[in-house]
Amino acid sequence: MDQTPGFIAAVEEAKLGYAEGGVPIGAALVSKDGQILGRGHNMRVQKGSPVLHAEMSALENSGRLPASAYEGATMYTTLSPCDMCTGACLLYKVNRVVIGENKNFLGGEELLKSRGKEVIVVDNQECKDLMEKFMKEKPELWNEDIAV
Amino acid sequence: MDQTPGFIAAVEEAKLGYAEGGVPIGAALVSKDGQILGRGHNMRVQKGSPVLHAEMSALENSGRLPASAYEGATMYTTLSPCDMCTGACLLYKVNRVVIGENKNFLGGEELLKSRGKEVIVVDNQECKDLMEKFMKEKPELWNEDIAV
Repeated sequence: MDQTPGFIAAVEEAKLGYAEGGVPIGAALVSKDGQILGRGHNMRVQKGSPVLHAEMSALENSGRLPASAYEGATMYTTLSPCDMCTGACLLYKVNRVVIGENKNFLGGEELLKSRGKEVIVVDNQECKDLMEKFMKEKPELWNEDIAV
Repeated sequence: MDQTPGFIAAVEEAKLGYAEGGVPIGAALVSKDGQILGRGHNMRVQKGSPVLHAEMSALENSGRLPASAYEGATMYTTLSPCDMCTGACLLYKVNRVVIGENKNFLGGEELLKSRGKEVIVVDNQECKDLMEKFMKEKPELWNEDIAV
């Protein structure tokens, strides 16, 4: 799972976000036939946006799509999705959510499962290390991002 | 409730959205001391955005805020919030969601209540009429917006 193009793209996006001084979380939305529909990273710092978490950026960068485009799709994300990103995955009825890690933050995985979504936690060391480093370096930015 | 500044702003935003040829749903985020932090409407058509539903636009237009700014806040919206907007209200821990109507669409009201949020449905005729008109005029756009 770590070597799928969607997961690799999500990790690349997270690193981009870190390099830009932002919240280093990345995501990629992949169609059922394996095409990356959109990829992106958290844009709180870069665009001053409270809504463009990584998964939201991936959806936004996928553009306007008919419901059929999301059928069987997978959202790859480097960190367990918050309530907002969980809800976005539910709205767009993605089939599966593949999560880099949930040690540094545990989001709406149970809600996703209760609504019939497949949830896979990869427990990727690179994702954990990057997030842990960021949380130590910029705790206030992280708290702002998850509203605590 | 229909005459509070937040609700009036949400309805104005919905009408703006309609006038622009978009999905006519509006929202306003109001702080506990009654200040409008941000207001906005669905921007699917105007910005080609799948994430800027009305409540998301109101949050986006509120900009980056510390968690404390959302304490005791109310999200006013002209239509029952979808899963994504429900999740955004949960992430930012708004205290209360005031909903213009839920006859044309019923979103995550039960989830909001189960997480301790106050949910008030105003059942406003103007909101119902505007939404019903739009759904008849542009059913494909509406279906795209809620991914059905």
